[in-house]
Amino acid sequence: MATVIEQMGARAKEASRELAVAGEKKNMALRAIAEALRANKDRIIKANEIDLKNGKENGLSNALLDRLSLDSKRIDGIADGVLQVAALPDPVGTVISGSTRPNGLKITKVRVPIGVIGIIFEARPNVTADAAVLCLKSGNAVILRGGKEAINSNMCITSVMQDAIESVGLNRNCVQLIEDTTRQSSVELMGLTEYLDVLIPRGGKGLIRAVVENAKVPVIETGAGNCHVYVDESADINMAAEIIYNAKTSRPSVCNAIETILVHEKIAEKALPVIKARLDEKNVELRGDERTRAILGDCVKPAVEDDWYTEYGDYILAVRVVDDIKSAVEHIAKYSTGHSECIVTKDYNSASYFTSAVDSAAVYVNASTRFTDGGEFGNGAEIGISTQKLHARGPMGLNELTSMKFIIEGNGQVR
Amino acid sequence: MATVIEQMGARAKEASRELAVAGEKKNMALRAIAEALRANKDRIIKANEIDLKNGKENGLSNALLDRLSLDSKRIDGIADGVLQVAALPDPVGTVISGSTRPNGLKITKVRVPIGVIGIIFEARPNVTADAAVLCLKSGNAVILRGGKEAINSNMCITSVMQDAIESVGLNRNCVQLIEDTTRQSSVELMGLTEYLDVLIPRGGKGLIRAVVENAKVPVIETGAGNCHVYVDESADINMAAEIIYNAKTSRPSVCNAIETILVHEKIAEKALPVIKARLDEKNVELRGDERTRAILGDCVKPAVEDDWYTEYGDYILAVRVVDDIKSAVEHIAKYSTGHSECIVTKDYNSASYFTSAVDSAAVYVNASTRFTDGGEFGNGAEIGISTQKLHARGPMGLNELTSMKFIIEGNGQVR
Repeated sequence: MATVIEQMGARAKEASRELAVAGEKKNMALRAIAEALRANKDRIIKANEIDLKNGKENGLSNALLDRLSLDSKRIDGIADGVLQVAALPDPVGTVISGSTRPNGLKITKVRVPIGVIGIIFEARPNVTADAAVLCLKSGNAVILRGGKEAINSNMCITSVMQDAIESVGLNRNCVQLIEDTTRQSSVELMGLTEYLDVLIPRGGKGLIRAVVENAKVPVIETGAGNCHVYVDESADINMAAEIIYNAKTSRPSVCNAIETILVHEKIAEKALPVIKARLDEKNVELRGDERTRAILGDCVKPAVEDDWYTEYGDYILAVRVVDDIKSAVEHIAKYSTGHSECIVTKDYNSASYFTSAVDSAAVYVNASTRFTDGGEFGNGAEIGISTQKLHARGPMGLNELTSMKFIIEGNGQVR
Repeated sequence: MATVIEQMGARAKEASRELAVAGEKKNMALRAIAEALRANKDRIIKANEIDLKNGKENGLSNALLDRLSLDSKRIDGIADGVLQVAALPDPVGTVISGSTRPNGLKITKVRVPIGVIGIIFEARPNVTADAAVLCLKSGNAVILRGGKEAINSNMCITSVMQDAIESVGLNRNCVQLIEDTTRQSSVELMGLTEYLDVLIPRGGKGLIRAVVENAKVPVIETGAGNCHVYVDESADINMAAEIIYNAKTSRPSVCNAIETILVHEKIAEKALPVIKARLDEKNVELRGDERTRAILGDCVKPAVEDDWYTEYGDYILAVRVVDDIKSAVEHIAKYSTGHSECIVTKDYNSASYFTSAVDSAAVYVNASTRFTDGGEFGNGAEIGISTQKLHARGPMGLNELTSMKFIIEGNGQVR
């Protein structure tokens, strides 16, 4: 007897076959979804109010309640996002490469959808629409499994989307939501090898670790960001201070914010006070190694080994003075999650060494790590930022939600 | 206390950092390996003789003993293969794409090595050199775990390669072999998340299933090939018979050989006897559905449900008469492993429908599935044929052994 989730998997697989050849109907569905989200605002807000009420009763923090909350303006924002995705070029059917072989075989490599994508996410109901729409556009059926805090909002948004999808003649099971928010349903989804082609977790470190360690289906790891700025001996100190200020304080909770700075010993004495003064404007707490504290004094807390590993997501920054660029690269190799790192330098060779030796998804010279983002990279949309090295690395747009196949045309060739 | 395999992982990670920036030294190492394999022929053959003796005592089949066996000519063949890989272009550092953003940031996407690759394989000592050399060329450190039947050959070949690698000034831990061939060592390797970036199993279905189901590290699934030829209503019957004959009998044990043919009912009566006559030349055993047996008679054994799932790897072929092209596509969607499928047709619309609706790594029109191969596709080398949809699909060459990173150059941009 198939479980509820296995049945969803089978329906998703069936829907994915329709979607793979749906062409322009996918955009019709997206436009219908945008319209339906606006038309059903009241219904969605009412469902959201139940989640907010439950959240308050269960003592959710104000920050979490804010992320959970939907109002007319936010729903308009979601609908606008859907229309932006509809306007992007369709990745499916793109010819990636091709050739004619000496024996006359014409080989063409074309983009195709991945098939069925699972998304596990936490208490942000906007992800329900965002993720579903990116999967739909790239020709993939999606199974969503959101957090229990947003279940009423998610159910309402999903049902609005399903009706819209059906209204243009597509299979409503292109988008499905798992309504059971117990641990059991995640575990089942992570083991759905027969139907699920990939599982993408979106959320905090705990969620991502749990999925990576327990999933039997292929996973794309996203979002863990222990990012660094290295201030080279030759750095423009004011530029370094501006980049650090921006990368730490413009939005400390996101994955492309920095957590540690590494400062070359020969510039530390001059640079650290300038950097600290800028960060003081936002009351950033510094945690430094011995050499940092020798320069900045006891107002800097001592950093312990754990600090180098920590993604604070807050107005806290670890600071370390390093012997040279090589030590900086080694620190990053040891502690970084491989998301985004930056060197501030005026030296050509330092820039060149850093960009080739640092093994992270995005390596910057003289710019804030905050630019690691699908929109900023010009992809137009983003489902997450991959910190693994297989399939996709860095911001994942529509192309990263596709696979490819080879089409080989002949006239009777045998080998 | 780190286990032996954890220690290997740590050494491989360290070696992988050197390899990532090794440039032309990699080719020097490859040429040194080719030379060393030839210079150490006697030593390798002596080690191989121990494996062959143990194999005979343990009752290995003649086919397996043949795959296990190395002689002077085979070692020359391996060395020639190494030189061919040395002559291929280096994928590392290739610029995949790039752009300058409106804010002046220059974004470049470049190929980089994956890092540390694990290869689990069975009793074919040539894989030791083949796989190691492809990993090395693409800048990856490799941990090999071969079958116990070939352990003496593998240890000898690995030590010859390590000495050659060291002789050009590279870290000998670029290539390591796990000498413990108990189940425990595979299990450990499959869980080596801290050090292993990807694990590629090479071997039979049992091995691949075990790895896919048990590995915690990312896996690339290779080689399962339940391939099909569909003979369309409009097919050139002689062409169909030639393609089927070639795809079944030229090398039945390989993954791109076919296992089932599907024949449109309107052509079955004419086509099946022609196809059977050609296959009779090699005494291919046919297993047919009711309609096939109604045409060809009782000399065709009845096919049972299991036959449609089976990768015979032998002179056996399942035959089914289908109502139309749609039924053929549905049969393939249900039973295929997603490797290679072919339609034989003269009809433009049938060819077009088949190539777009069939979701396999390689989809052929009027050509033998036997061409699904790195060399035949013009890649110059192959580590396996991926039947999964993430990262790599179809023949995997050097590019498929790489990841990428973004390098972003600015002059103080903040967001």
